[in-house]
Amino acid sequence: MSELVPRYKLWLESEAGLVMSDYRLRLLALIAETGSLAAAAAAMGLSYRRAWGKIKELEANLGFPLVHSEVGGAGGGHTTLTHQGRHLVEAYSRFRSRVEAAVTTAFAEELGSIASQHTPHT
Amino acid sequence: MSELVPRYKLWLESEAGLVMSDYRLRLLALIAETGSLAAAAAAMGLSYRRAWGKIKELEANLGFPLVHSEVGGAGGGHTTLTHQGRHLVEAYSRFRSRVEAAVTTAFAEELGSIASQHTPHT
Repeated sequence: MSELVPRYKLWLESEAGLVMSDYRLRLLALIAETGSLAAAAAAMGLSYRRAWGKIKELEANLGFPLVHSEVGGAGGGHTTLTHQGRHLVEAYSRFRSRVEAAVTTAFAEELGSIASQHTPHT
Repeated sequence: MSELVPRYKLWLESEAGLVMSDYRLRLLALIAETGSLAAAAAAMGLSYRRAWGKIKELEANLGFPLVHSEVGGAGGGHTTLTHQGRHLVEAYSRFRSRVEAAVTTAFAEELGSIASQHTPHT
């Protein structure tokens, strides 16, 4: 007996294009946690250049900076979220949690009986 | 000034794979409406064979039939949803509507102020 499960993908767009997604949220949260774009990129299996490109794309589509970088020093640079970046990350995280809760509840209430009767061919 | 808008994709999976998506829902709803797989496929710009394949894939992953076909006759065959197919389409439609309402409300409440301040580079 195989379970039915709900899946979803969530993101934000402006007319210019993508401005936030769950994947980008994770990248930004890792930057906030580690203070380092290199460490955040490595944790996601991305090259530094590719991670940087993803953030610059969001910033261009949003119209404001998400991260602030200080180059040099013993540790070799430091990246933090801007005030607006932090605000967007927090607001999107709350948005995402509420959608996730709604998906779980609506699935259980509308499709729970089908999900539990379900016995696929094997 | 460009608006921020929420986007999402929603689907159901079993261990076997995809069992329902918004796209498949539309195909099944068109079959229910028209009584014809050929007409439903044409309305979605799909070949008959491709539309048929999509439905057979869902049925295999679900373990029960979604459609019932009667071949021949003057009109050249007729396809209807099975009882289980109709039940799944109705339940998934309700699920989808609730998720859509939650996305709209959560977006307005959590990201509405950012969305209205938003002025991208042009």
